[in-house]
Amino acid sequence: MSAATNVTAAVLVIGDEILSGRTKDKNLGYIAEYLGQIGVDVREARVVPDVEAEIVAALNALRSRYDYVITTGGIGPTHDDITADAVGRAFGLPVGEDPRVIAMMLERYAPPDLTPARRRMARMPEGSELIENPISRAPGFRIGNVFVLAGVPSVMQAMLDSAVKAMRTGSVMQVESIEAGAVPEGRYGDMLGRIAEANPAVSIGSYPSYKDGRFMNQIVVRGKEAAAVSEAKAAVEAMLDAIRGEGKPL
Amino acid sequence: MSAATNVTAAVLVIGDEILSGRTKDKNLGYIAEYLGQIGVDVREARVVPDVEAEIVAALNALRSRYDYVITTGGIGPTHDDITADAVGRAFGLPVGEDPRVIAMMLERYAPPDLTPARRRMARMPEGSELIENPISRAPGFRIGNVFVLAGVPSVMQAMLDSAVKAMRTGSVMQVESIEAGAVPEGRYGDMLGRIAEANPAVSIGSYPSYKDGRFMNQIVVRGKEAAAVSEAKAAVEAMLDAIRGEGKPL
Repeated sequence: MSAATNVTAAVLVIGDEILSGRTKDKNLGYIAEYLGQIGVDVREARVVPDVEAEIVAALNALRSRYDYVITTGGIGPTHDDITADAVGRAFGLPVGEDPRVIAMMLERYAPPDLTPARRRMARMPEGSELIENPISRAPGFRIGNVFVLAGVPSVMQAMLDSAVKAMRTGSVMQVESIEAGAVPEGRYGDMLGRIAEANPAVSIGSYPSYKDGRFMNQIVVRGKEAAAVSEAKAAVEAMLDAIRGEGKPL
Repeated sequence: MSAATNVTAAVLVIGDEILSGRTKDKNLGYIAEYLGQIGVDVREARVVPDVEAEIVAALNALRSRYDYVITTGGIGPTHDDITADAVGRAFGLPVGEDPRVIAMMLERYAPPDLTPARRRMARMPEGSELIENPISRAPGFRIGNVFVLAGVPSVMQAMLDSAVKAMRTGSVMQVESIEAGAVPEGRYGDMLGRIAEANPAVSIGSYPSYKDGRFMNQIVVRGKEAAAVSEAKAAVEAMLDAIRGEGKPL
């Protein structure tokens, strides 16, 4: 049995619009699922407003603790796009216009249309690597273990495809979902707890959803060792079979 | 001009399933919008796994900094529901079965069906106030400035209706959205920045969305003084009219 390896990440969502509820974040779920599938485990996420000190503090807390940090939002051409400056501040690096990005923009814009606003999108901390943006050109960037991506989901997703090429990856989490259906959590909770205790190499979650006046439950077994996941899954299924076989109303 | 008052909140989303991407969080956006409308400003959010030390650390960071903290998730009957214990630990308070909740459960369950798993939902820090759950009975709770709600959206939403009754509220944020449509951010970014500078009593955001191969933009003006918001809105509209009137291709 080879030891499972862990590579960890955090997501930092930047933007007043998420905290006001105007925009419902769709990036965290996408990034979490995407990175999970390649063996990078998202362990924490934070959402902060467009306030430099807040971005800097969150970024420094996260980048020292996880292998990678993915930020989303705040890299456009308007005054409220302050992520590049905040990232520079967090790293103590000067921030300036990257000549590669200016050259890229001059392919698209005539010099008079390369407004100061658009030039803003070329600002990044010195030493950054560019992250390709096949949708609207203006790139994201990587500095140290921080990947700075756009907030618009389709652009973020395209950038993430490039960004992950630069990441180390660990063992991929193996996931098995078992439908408990209408069996109430309160009926299986004690037994499931004992199964969790007996299977310390996996984590077991129980997830209710509520629809049309009733709860439906799903039990999820996650772990990095396939054999341990299978074993716990079998125990959960046997438990549910036993409960269903009791003939008592659920 | 009366001074605007601010009441602040943070949201703490608890659950492995959010960080794995299995469940896409819908609670943050709902809470942010709901609290905003009653004059409580959500300033930060965090997502942490089902790990006690992580919940405790995040909760202590947030509860000392904001007027209120709303947590979601981890209050069900299974072993992975550890929020009550973590909250007790954060406050340094003993956690035990609340007799009011046990009594409530005995109205629903015959004593043999009041399993240890179900009794788990009666656990809360000593001195907690109950938060009513009209959907599935087992209540949330409030201790100090922390409101502990369920993770299932419909249950969380019902609990939030009760929870807010115990909150002080401040001035409600006034919000005006102006459609910039296909006018590119790069065209209006410089002027918008000057408008933002000239209107320090409001915050102005520019939000692109991308659909069918093109960007559409919306400019949002937010502030607590209605007159200041109207003034900034008028300036934004005048700016867009001027750009559109130029007759240059956008």
